[in-house]
Amino acid sequence: MKDVYFMERDPYAPIRHCYGISKILYEGKSKYQEIQVVESHYFGKILILDGVVQFTEKNEFFYHEMLTHPVMFAHKNPQNVLIIGGGDGGILREVLKHKSVKKAVLVDIDKDVVEVSKKFFPTVACSMDDPRAIILNEDGFKYIQDYKNEFDVIIVDSTDPVGFAHVLTTEEFFKYVFEALKEDGIYVGQSESLHYHLDIVVRFQKALKKSFPIVDLYTTVIPVYAGYWWSFSVGSKVYNPREISREVDVETRFYSDEIHKNAFLPPNFYQKILNGNFKY
Amino acid sequence: MKDVYFMERDPYAPIRHCYGISKILYEGKSKYQEIQVVESHYFGKILILDGVVQFTEKNEFFYHEMLTHPVMFAHKNPQNVLIIGGGDGGILREVLKHKSVKKAVLVDIDKDVVEVSKKFFPTVACSMDDPRAIILNEDGFKYIQDYKNEFDVIIVDSTDPVGFAHVLTTEEFFKYVFEALKEDGIYVGQSESLHYHLDIVVRFQKALKKSFPIVDLYTTVIPVYAGYWWSFSVGSKVYNPREISREVDVETRFYSDEIHKNAFLPPNFYQKILNGNFKY
Repeated sequence: MKDVYFMERDPYAPIRHCYGISKILYEGKSKYQEIQVVESHYFGKILILDGVVQFTEKNEFFYHEMLTHPVMFAHKNPQNVLIIGGGDGGILREVLKHKSVKKAVLVDIDKDVVEVSKKFFPTVACSMDDPRAIILNEDGFKYIQDYKNEFDVIIVDSTDPVGFAHVLTTEEFFKYVFEALKEDGIYVGQSESLHYHLDIVVRFQKALKKSFPIVDLYTTVIPVYAGYWWSFSVGSKVYNPREISREVDVETRFYSDEIHKNAFLPPNFYQKILNGNFKY
Repeated sequence: MKDVYFMERDPYAPIRHCYGISKILYEGKSKYQEIQVVESHYFGKILILDGVVQFTEKNEFFYHEMLTHPVMFAHKNPQNVLIIGGGDGGILREVLKHKSVKKAVLVDIDKDVVEVSKKFFPTVACSMDDPRAIILNEDGFKYIQDYKNEFDVIIVDSTDPVGFAHVLTTEEFFKYVFEALKEDGIYVGQSESLHYHLDIVVRFQKALKKSFPIVDLYTTVIPVYAGYWWSFSVGSKVYNPREISREVDVETRFYSDEIHKNAFLPPNFYQKILNGNFKY
């Protein structure tokens, strides 16, 4: 089919993205959200949740690598990793590239996302059968409250902070994250676009600062997220997230030591954002 | 009006952007292209040429500052500046912020763009009456061939390299640019998106290398261009474009000395792109 478009409905974006598609491969409704998989001319298969593109086969590696590796390489020896959200398995795949990892727990509330990813995105879901992986379909907000001083790294790969994912961006949640981390633990979460969601970025950072002594922000241009200039917020107990603690020994397509350093915002610009002086 | 969208038709983009608009302020056809001005809910007024968004009132400063200031501040004393394209006046406004500039010649083939900008975008066209500005409606490709050893800085602010703007990205044109520059002259042009137009970026860089001893590449996230991760290609005779030669003494909203340095691609990643090893 030509001239058929999927038109994104992103409640947070002032611009709508339209993708030329050739096939609708899956449409379903889980307990939590609408799930769609479409085949597009340029991007390959696309996963869509509640009308918003989560990733495309062609360029998912930007997001998955850049959410995972900066904190993993800031940590000296990450062994026990918790992923909240990320039911598609992309973050899990990146985490398990690190030989130091002994256990990676993936907690995604929506079992259907896991199943859809296994069926339609085998190159993303490819690590779910790794013996180090534990896949749980539970509420991450509740799950984390049962753990103290347990994880080296916690990665939150959530949908936009509207609806059921909102709690994963609150001060209360970050307190639980802090407590669930070991004494040199480090957290990262996606925190929306510097172009269109500056207010969310700032709120996110301020909430993190209530719990963590070290808070930072880095960005990557994610080609399919509205606003593109995507931000990732880090909370750390000890490690400076701008510094790489170990040799970069995993195979990646985009991430590298120099990309790591370049991704963090220059200090004055970062302060300008936090102080609310980069409104536009 | 609600639920009215302008749907971009960008021949180079695998994704189409839709803007919620409230008014169509102008529609015309010049000798060279279709020109439209619409009022949007979020972005303010938008200039559209041949169906492609050129800039919006809300965020034009990213593009105009980042195309102008890196080469202007790499140069020790830019006095005589040539702008090809940029009939809207945004680059001219930024160039004339530099006190060293004695003359800025703007050569845009399309007089109608200049007139439309003056009428609908007074904050962009605001420097056209500056006594240092000369506005010419001529073919930049022909104009430049009459000048040798004349300009300190040449900035090409063109539409996408399809149709009549294509000649501004050829080896032949870059030879004329080189000759029109003084012995320490420096050139910059917009060279499309690292996400969607990598082949164009590489071709552009290779063509520049035929004339210039120093060629470099920097990027900025431009919120309304498809692919967003926008690239700017520099050709320089003497100055290292990564280095700032003077105090940053102009008022800007985004550009700064640290943004300048951060914008250039890390060296290994840059080489990977040039070598064709960042295909995806």
